[in-house]
Amino acid sequence: MEPTALKENFKAYQKKMRAYNHAMGVLQYDFETVMPKGGAEGMGETLGILSEESYKLSVSDELRAMIAELLAQKDALDFQTRREAEELLEDIEKIEKIPMEEYVAFEKLTNKASFVWHSAKPDNDYKSFEPFLAEIIEYQKRFAKYIKPELPAYDALLDGFERGMTQAMLDPYFKNVRESLVPLIHEIGRAKQPDMSFLERPYALNKQRAFSDYLMEVMCIDRSHCSIGEVEHPFTTEFNKHDVRITTHYHEDMMHDSMYSVIHEGGHALYELHTGDDLIGSVLAGGASMGIHESQSRFYENIIGRSEPFIEYIFPKMREIFPSELTAVTPHEFFLAVNKCTPSLIRTQADELTYSLHIMVRYELEKRLIGGSLSTKDLPEAWNAMYKEYLGITVPSDREGVLQDSHWSGGMFGYFPSYSVGSAYAAQMLSSMQKELDVWNLVSTGELAPIIAWLTERIYKHGMLLKPNELVQNACGAPFDPKYYTDYLTKKFRAIYSI
Amino acid sequence: MEPTALKENFKAYQKKMRAYNHAMGVLQYDFETVMPKGGAEGMGETLGILSEESYKLSVSDELRAMIAELLAQKDALDFQTRREAEELLEDIEKIEKIPMEEYVAFEKLTNKASFVWHSAKPDNDYKSFEPFLAEIIEYQKRFAKYIKPELPAYDALLDGFERGMTQAMLDPYFKNVRESLVPLIHEIGRAKQPDMSFLERPYALNKQRAFSDYLMEVMCIDRSHCSIGEVEHPFTTEFNKHDVRITTHYHEDMMHDSMYSVIHEGGHALYELHTGDDLIGSVLAGGASMGIHESQSRFYENIIGRSEPFIEYIFPKMREIFPSELTAVTPHEFFLAVNKCTPSLIRTQADELTYSLHIMVRYELEKRLIGGSLSTKDLPEAWNAMYKEYLGITVPSDREGVLQDSHWSGGMFGYFPSYSVGSAYAAQMLSSMQKELDVWNLVSTGELAPIIAWLTERIYKHGMLLKPNELVQNACGAPFDPKYYTDYLTKKFRAIYSI
Repeated sequence: MEPTALKENFKAYQKKMRAYNHAMGVLQYDFETVMPKGGAEGMGETLGILSEESYKLSVSDELRAMIAELLAQKDALDFQTRREAEELLEDIEKIEKIPMEEYVAFEKLTNKASFVWHSAKPDNDYKSFEPFLAEIIEYQKRFAKYIKPELPAYDALLDGFERGMTQAMLDPYFKNVRESLVPLIHEIGRAKQPDMSFLERPYALNKQRAFSDYLMEVMCIDRSHCSIGEVEHPFTTEFNKHDVRITTHYHEDMMHDSMYSVIHEGGHALYELHTGDDLIGSVLAGGASMGIHESQSRFYENIIGRSEPFIEYIFPKMREIFPSELTAVTPHEFFLAVNKCTPSLIRTQADELTYSLHIMVRYELEKRLIGGSLSTKDLPEAWNAMYKEYLGITVPSDREGVLQDSHWSGGMFGYFPSYSVGSAYAAQMLSSMQKELDVWNLVSTGELAPIIAWLTERIYKHGMLLKPNELVQNACGAPFDPKYYTDYLTKKFRAIYSI
Repeated sequence: MEPTALKENFKAYQKKMRAYNHAMGVLQYDFETVMPKGGAEGMGETLGILSEESYKLSVSDELRAMIAELLAQKDALDFQTRREAEELLEDIEKIEKIPMEEYVAFEKLTNKASFVWHSAKPDNDYKSFEPFLAEIIEYQKRFAKYIKPELPAYDALLDGFERGMTQAMLDPYFKNVRESLVPLIHEIGRAKQPDMSFLERPYALNKQRAFSDYLMEVMCIDRSHCSIGEVEHPFTTEFNKHDVRITTHYHEDMMHDSMYSVIHEGGHALYELHTGDDLIGSVLAGGASMGIHESQSRFYENIIGRSEPFIEYIFPKMREIFPSELTAVTPHEFFLAVNKCTPSLIRTQADELTYSLHIMVRYELEKRLIGGSLSTKDLPEAWNAMYKEYLGITVPSDREGVLQDSHWSGGMFGYFPSYSVGSAYAAQMLSSMQKELDVWNLVSTGELAPIIAWLTERIYKHGMLLKPNELVQNACGAPFDPKYYTDYLTKKFRAIYSI
């Protein structure tokens, strides 16, 4: 085919692939936000049909032929087209390496396992779930071998969620987390705790909604391209850089919960909203990885949103929206309250400082489960021992312990670390950003635009053109270094607790 | 192919067709209700891609082969499968009869014409729109010849919106409307008018929302299968019988506007919600035609919803929701106010009695435009003369006259009559229903379930299995007869105005 025509066809093909993703995304968003609940079955069927069509597009002979022709003239290709071809080829090869019948059997297994987990958790019945988990792990080991036979099995799984993430990188990372943070958390346990009671007063929902609008404004989020929906478990979804949807959940007696949801999801949204225009319609549009995405949400949620300059800046407006609720509360008290550190059982409710210890426990256990040195039978005991050792708390039941997360029932081994690594990327980016911007001065005057511009240039605009490690290098001028994260946390929490 | 396998493939194929419609419906609903407005362009592109795929499915060789094989053994087929095959074949043939290049040119023309109409209307500039309208009419005449060469051109167009609807049926219908209603409307113009001022008081939006929920409850609408969205111009959409979405628009100073939107759209919803279970996933699921659909919305909106027994039944609850707003208003006064008859310029704001005269004007003009006895140049003059003659009002500008509706700019000639015929179907159904049910006694005690059951049996459950005229015969035991409609209106409005 004539090169220009080939490239045009390839771009049009990607647009079609994106259109299916767009449609499925809207259906899923509708499902989560406004669908009458009786529509679930029909929605599931339609999603099934679209996802089959979408799958066919992603492995079709037509696509393979285009990729082969493009990569045959690799050196003549522009960078973006070459990356698109490579990315799509990698997806095809990954799919092809797993024998279809094993893949189908695994899908069935995880469907069944999710179903079992959904009642095992409330019933506190690990025993019923354990055989499924054991079988899932066997599949995961085999799949790891199929996909990246040259890597240790757990590295192959990690790479599936965050390209280039390995045990060689995570072992020292979590060692550093453990060695720096565990003693700090113990020390904080003995310090005086801030008062949080004013956060538990009733905050009217319509005022909270107005507050969300204000937070979006402070974050420079263009509402004509980003809406706020209301759901049980907040998430962000994007269909293209011009249509991003964040969601939140309002509780009358936990205003800070929605506040930090909005800032967190707003961070995800900023990333998507500032993808480069050249990537519209490309398979490389959107965030580079889970870890990089999480670095952005947590940068805004924790580093900016839980900083004292930020609280001081937004406080006058908060007093305007919540005059009676915030009676006699100072910005400093509010700042202390939203940074209270308490080791707890549930990962999703963990504070900024203890969060990574929850992940570390999961990382260590996954490594042993996949490596074969821990059996699923002994897992709850190992879980409980680590919570005791690192967080200093006793796990009263598997419901609040090993059964709390859905990830393993869905076969997602290797996913958890990206949550924690995101926070660590963010801290390193802050340090690098501070060399060029007076970050805290900007935050204290509510000028987030230069910060967003800095991140756009180094991270957002590149979409998936660059890989996670390349983006970190690009933003920080150096490879990933976990020290920034523990230094940042240590300094911040020593100051908060005056220790 | 083995008959069972063939039938199964045919059903699976229809499910796939429905899945595309489902997805496009959700995207459109999202577009109208919650999409951030910056998402419009991307949504349009995705809808374009899906609609192309959906089009390919509807004319594919695979589908043709299945239909041919099924219809070759017509007599051995069950009724539903035979109807499905016939319906899909008719669609294919209709598409094939129009030369592709003419169809594409017409699409371009109507896109352009809609664009021009969108500014011609506010600018009151018929002249800029007129050449487009003239060209659209030429296409419509040609298309009519391609599709049904055996019919007069306007009949072929009417049939495209309501199968079996002809000038031979509509001429006596509108003659009857004209002869019975025009003198009545003139007489009412001289009678004492009811007070409507209390409807223009402010009714808080959250109270109006609660009132909508109550109306849905009275209409026995299962909210787990039907939601209420908020939009500029209310509509109903359905993805399958388990997921129907009505919409409304709240105005503080026009509570009756949203009230009757909800009842009207609720009528559309009831029809869809009670489609037979056998039709799930079939191309015959959903309402039989525009006219039959409109008969249901208007049955609930006007016949039930604007009746005195209904107002009396709901009034205690209305007083509970709007205690201050309805101070010193009686059910009878409310009933009179929502039935006030005033000849007016704008079709969409017309009352129950004058509505069909607006349609009659359009019908007569379309007939002449397609028949060739009226040129687009002379259209505004003809329009204004008919409004003067039948509604007794002077049209001050084309903006409020011939330019008011979008239909013609979209090439939809033959669509308007189905709005009016729907009301006439509804009146005939009422008369038939009254032979078996004590309708007004049921309405006065809020028991709509037997009425819904009656309509389900005769209309709703059949989906598109039966054609419009067959459904009327089925419900009324007789063919369509316009006398019921004018009798119903005459009796109702003579009583209201004591004339």
